Amino acid sequence: MKLNDLNTNPWTLARRAEKMNPSVIREILKVTEKPGIISFAGGLPSPRTFPVSAFSEACAKVLREDGQAALQYAASEGYGPLREAVASQLPWLVDPAQVLITTGSQQGLDLVAKVLVDAGSRILVETPTYLGALQAFSPMEPEVVSVDSDAEGVDVDDVAAKAGTGASRARFLYVLPNFQNPTGRTMSEARRAALSARAAQLGLPLIEDNPYGDLWFDAPPPLPLTARNPEGCIYLGSFSKVLAPGLRLGFVVAPRHVMPKLLQAKQAADLHSPSFNQRMVAEVMKHGFLDRHVPTIRALYKSQRDAMLAALSKEMAGLGVQWNTPDGGMFLWARLPQGMDAVALLPKAVAKNVAFVPGAAFYADNPDPRALRLSFVTASVDQINTGIAALAEAIREARGA
Amino acid sequence: MKLNDLNTNPWTLARRAEKMNPSVIREILKVTEKPGIISFAGGLPSPRTFPVSAFSEACAKVLREDGQAALQYAASEGYGPLREAVASQLPWLVDPAQVLITTGSQQGLDLVAKVLVDAGSRILVETPTYLGALQAFSPMEPEVVSVDSDAEGVDVDDVAAKAGTGASRARFLYVLPNFQNPTGRTMSEARRAALSARAAQLGLPLIEDNPYGDLWFDAPPPLPLTARNPEGCIYLGSFSKVLAPGLRLGFVVAPRHVMPKLLQAKQAADLHSPSFNQRMVAEVMKHGFLDRHVPTIRALYKSQRDAMLAALSKEMAGLGVQWNTPDGGMFLWARLPQGMDAVALLPKAVAKNVAFVPGAAFYADNPDPRALRLSFVTASVDQINTGIAALAEAIREARGA
Repeated sequence: MKLNDLNTNPWTLARRAEKMNPSVIREILKVTEKPGIISFAGGLPSPRTFPVSAFSEACAKVLREDGQAALQYAASEGYGPLREAVASQLPWLVDPAQVLITTGSQQGLDLVAKVLVDAGSRILVETPTYLGALQAFSPMEPEVVSVDSDAEGVDVDDVAAKAGTGASRARFLYVLPNFQNPTGRTMSEARRAALSARAAQLGLPLIEDNPYGDLWFDAPPPLPLTARNPEGCIYLGSFSKVLAPGLRLGFVVAPRHVMPKLLQAKQAADLHSPSFNQRMVAEVMKHGFLDRHVPTIRALYKSQRDAMLAALSKEMAGLGVQWNTPDGGMFLWARLPQGMDAVALLPKAVAKNVAFVPGAAFYADNPDPRALRLSFVTASVDQINTGIAALAEAIREARGA
Repeated sequence: MKLNDLNTNPWTLARRAEKMNPSVIREILKVTEKPGIISFAGGLPSPRTFPVSAFSEACAKVLREDGQAALQYAASEGYGPLREAVASQLPWLVDPAQVLITTGSQQGLDLVAKVLVDAGSRILVETPTYLGALQAFSPMEPEVVSVDSDAEGVDVDDVAAKAGTGASRARFLYVLPNFQNPTGRTMSEARRAALSARAAQLGLPLIEDNPYGDLWFDAPPPLPLTARNPEGCIYLGSFSKVLAPGLRLGFVVAPRHVMPKLLQAKQAADLHSPSFNQRMVAEVMKHGFLDRHVPTIRALYKSQRDAMLAALSKEMAGLGVQWNTPDGGMFLWARLPQGMDAVALLPKAVAKNVAFVPGAAFYADNPDPRALRLSFVTASVDQINTGIAALAEAIREARGA
């Protein structure tokens, strides 16, 4: 190496950075940005659900009545009234002191990893699991172990088999029990009861991620795992799906043993989440706003899910494609016939102006090449009909090829 | 351990978390929250400088014209027009593609550490240095080495002596050249030229943190280090001191070799900084707003610095206290006479209704027990006069004791 080269690139990357790769989904989303494409790929809430006028009023009020405080540095824990509002809306007894406001629930995952994961620590995840969680945990260099899972959630015996002992004892099991990203599946009441009991018996902490729980269609999902054993669980929530993602606000509910460390990690990460945004959301949430607003999101997303199910039944007939029926959330999980590969199908679909995310992106190991994730919330019903027909056509051609 | 205990606390903390401690400053600020206290302790910009009405207009406009996009998920890099505005205001040629918008410049420090620091990696810092940087770097478990520093900045020969070789080669030197937190000192032009040349020769990357650079009083500070060698430096900037901290917006300017990894770390940390806040700031910055607004902050802070210097000259006469004269920023650095200890002085000062931060908090090692940091921007001129008199009285009593 010439001295000149050394001068040009003096940077030595950390080991974790060498392993970082661009998000597969991010790369896919770039491909799907061509004009006119119908995208079932992104995990974007429908912007029709954003309460723009409520935010306008809240902004004006916060700046008029409390502008200087809203624009000043603030406590790392979060804005008191927002922490209280979060605590009071959760279905178990939560002390607001156990609530930490985060810069989206993604940051909650980053903080959890910083506080609980050493290089080489074993952590357990569902099969498949949320890709963003894998990305957030990865910088702390865990050993990620996938737990067998079915339509009701993780296999509790496999959790016990993989929980490990001694130095290889898992630091936690990460689960997304309601309308999971990517599968849309929900952990049943029986599975929750069994997992909660077994985790307590094993001394296995649970990280429960619940960004979609409020988006149920016919009936609310069963009680959260954290409600069953608050001292053994960290619960992550988000305002992104019930209000809007662009404010980047989420929260963590953590037990007393962990909260002080999460708070210190939060302070080191970004001092605090935007005080202005926290006051806006606290203002919008007053007087039962969510009780009126969230049902409108549920109704919209249910009608979109129904449209996608109907289009799949019509267009996929005879193609050997399988799919599930999510009870809420934003995603539906489909499986191509034996021998087909969703990654290979994607460019053929994009050529027909429709996009999805290959399911392989969501597995910590042993990906299922036949799986694909379809979001039913961003596209309109007309687009869903056109897009599913195009997807069926792409599958038909790929089968014939 | 009884099984019951195991069930109650199943949490194993990461090694880095065991080492996390509450911020000394945070604990001090709690002590100083008693009513009626005059605080020179916090690093809070004067809320009188926050352009509340400009933000009100910008909020309303963003939500009216672009509400759905402002509230949706967005690119991890940041909002294009804001990245362009940042690039165009910097005093060297910056491609907007090299600008990453962060959740405050504190997050820039977190991302830099994630991408560049392995456990045990040597990093160099000034003596003393910004406490928040030590906190942000600490989770990646570096070996932090303090470089000798004087009133003009780091000792360049000591940088070379401590840069290390082979596996112990320092990953970077972290510097805050303009109106440093905590000392208020500015790195001279001669020192910048020498450091820039020596760092390039050593292949030592520089992390240049510049939150206060726009807050100069009589003349702008010398050209940033990054402007002299953009491929060898990462530059961190902030909107907290020129607009408002409560929006939590800062930025990183990074060379091509490092930017993709910083971006991936950013995505894993919080997906992106709030799109709404980014659009608000881009809107406020239009039509040269900062060119009109920042001079008003400079004038205010200069008058407050002058008031504190005058009060110190008057009240500390004969007490053997030394202090410097910062050319900008928010902080002044003082030193108690031989034999006195700033930590021991603090409760005596608080008893007289005045607070400061003991300088010891800002040293990676070998703290100077006599140093203290005084912020001159949060208190009013009247409070500065009263508070410095009270501080002098506390020193007088402590000397006599």
